[in-house]
Amino acid sequence: MRVKLIVAYDGTRYHGWQLQPNNVTIESVLNQALSELLGEEIFVTGASRTDAGVHSRGNVAVFDTDTKIPAEKISYALNQRLPEDIVVQDSCEVPKDFHPRRINSKKTYEYRILNRKFPDPARRLDTYFYHHSLDVEKMREASFYLVGEHDFKSFCSVKTAAETTVRTIYGLEVTRQEDIIKIRITGSGFLYNMVRIIAGTLIQAGGGKIEPEAVKEILQAKDRSAAGPTAPAHGLTMLGIEYEQMKSVCL
Amino acid sequence: MRVKLIVAYDGTRYHGWQLQPNNVTIESVLNQALSELLGEEIFVTGASRTDAGVHSRGNVAVFDTDTKIPAEKISYALNQRLPEDIVVQDSCEVPKDFHPRRINSKKTYEYRILNRKFPDPARRLDTYFYHHSLDVEKMREASFYLVGEHDFKSFCSVKTAAETTVRTIYGLEVTRQEDIIKIRITGSGFLYNMVRIIAGTLIQAGGGKIEPEAVKEILQAKDRSAAGPTAPAHGLTMLGIEYEQMKSVCL
Repeated sequence: MRVKLIVAYDGTRYHGWQLQPNNVTIESVLNQALSELLGEEIFVTGASRTDAGVHSRGNVAVFDTDTKIPAEKISYALNQRLPEDIVVQDSCEVPKDFHPRRINSKKTYEYRILNRKFPDPARRLDTYFYHHSLDVEKMREASFYLVGEHDFKSFCSVKTAAETTVRTIYGLEVTRQEDIIKIRITGSGFLYNMVRIIAGTLIQAGGGKIEPEAVKEILQAKDRSAAGPTAPAHGLTMLGIEYEQMKSVCL
Repeated sequence: MRVKLIVAYDGTRYHGWQLQPNNVTIESVLNQALSELLGEEIFVTGASRTDAGVHSRGNVAVFDTDTKIPAEKISYALNQRLPEDIVVQDSCEVPKDFHPRRINSKKTYEYRILNRKFPDPARRLDTYFYHHSLDVEKMREASFYLVGEHDFKSFCSVKTAAETTVRTIYGLEVTRQEDIIKIRITGSGFLYNMVRIIAGTLIQAGGGKIEPEAVKEILQAKDRSAAGPTAPAHGLTMLGIEYEQMKSVCL
């Protein structure tokens, strides 16, 4: 059967999701724990191949297995074998042809900025500390230009291998609660570093370094150097993925 | 001059506040960083001598110094020399006779319980994960009996050296936001392990192991074994201290 996992992690200690020689990654830890648990060689396929330092509350991984353990029980047994910074939130059986990156989905990410005078030790791992005052209203104005279908070439690392840089953003919210500004963004898919470059650009708008309207020209430039810097990885969390045909299955 | 510091820390890596031979503590790190910064031997006096694993957003420390650096600037310079899990939030001059434990104050602590099916890796360091469902209304009912002046002998570690076990709780709030239950408690002072034993007892009430009214008898028993277990240290955060005569000074 094919099993889907919902995977939460604190990415601080890991070299990102994807397998790498000589480095510990989320994927390598999952493969090892699953192989030991199920007694067969397991290779997971991830939905979002998050970068080093990026966190997750709801990334998705699938794998095939011959086990007799019911799919719903795998999460409990697997968590016994995982380190405390990786916790599977749910497991369920999915159709044999379900591929977490090839089925239409809505992915949601959250970028968190800690905007205050001094860092908060309790939030140092999952927020980006930025002490210059940021105007959330300006960040919100700037964000409006990004919603919808656009060519996001300016918001994409030049290292990308993507065939097309056109993507659709369904929603982009900027909210502030006490000292933490959250940029929550939902889209059909994201280019390499896209959310972090959007965050870096909205920070420029919030700090008055660019006008909110400048985002329109940044999009039109189709040039990475037109946009703001790539905000640090540790402020980013993959919140979750909603698959079109899968409303009824796990989480 | 005498200088007051507001000290925030993630207590995970430390053996608590207080100096100990051969162990790294918040106090030892502050003494070392201040001595290096100011070029004289500095010993801080802390307000709340938190246990190993307990966190802080607003603990208070004072020290005497001959430095010419303005008191308000010390926080900035000191943070350059502190590890990222200890951050001074403010510094200011206080009267020479100000002692952080001998002046009447209101201390506020928060105990956080993560109440859900599976742990959340992002909150593993500052919440206590408890997966059995808790009834916040019952926890609240139980908490009412604790507010006011009482003999808290039942809610005090037998290891205490306190002369009297009578204390006053000014406020005790139990709130739930999504998966996190917060117990916020303000008092004139707290006995050894008092907040953690209160948390452990309220968890028993919330889980139906005791009736909320039982808290009344637990107080009357004046016996540590009558109350619930001591909840783990990492769920506890010292939020802040308000001194009667110091409204106008720092934070």
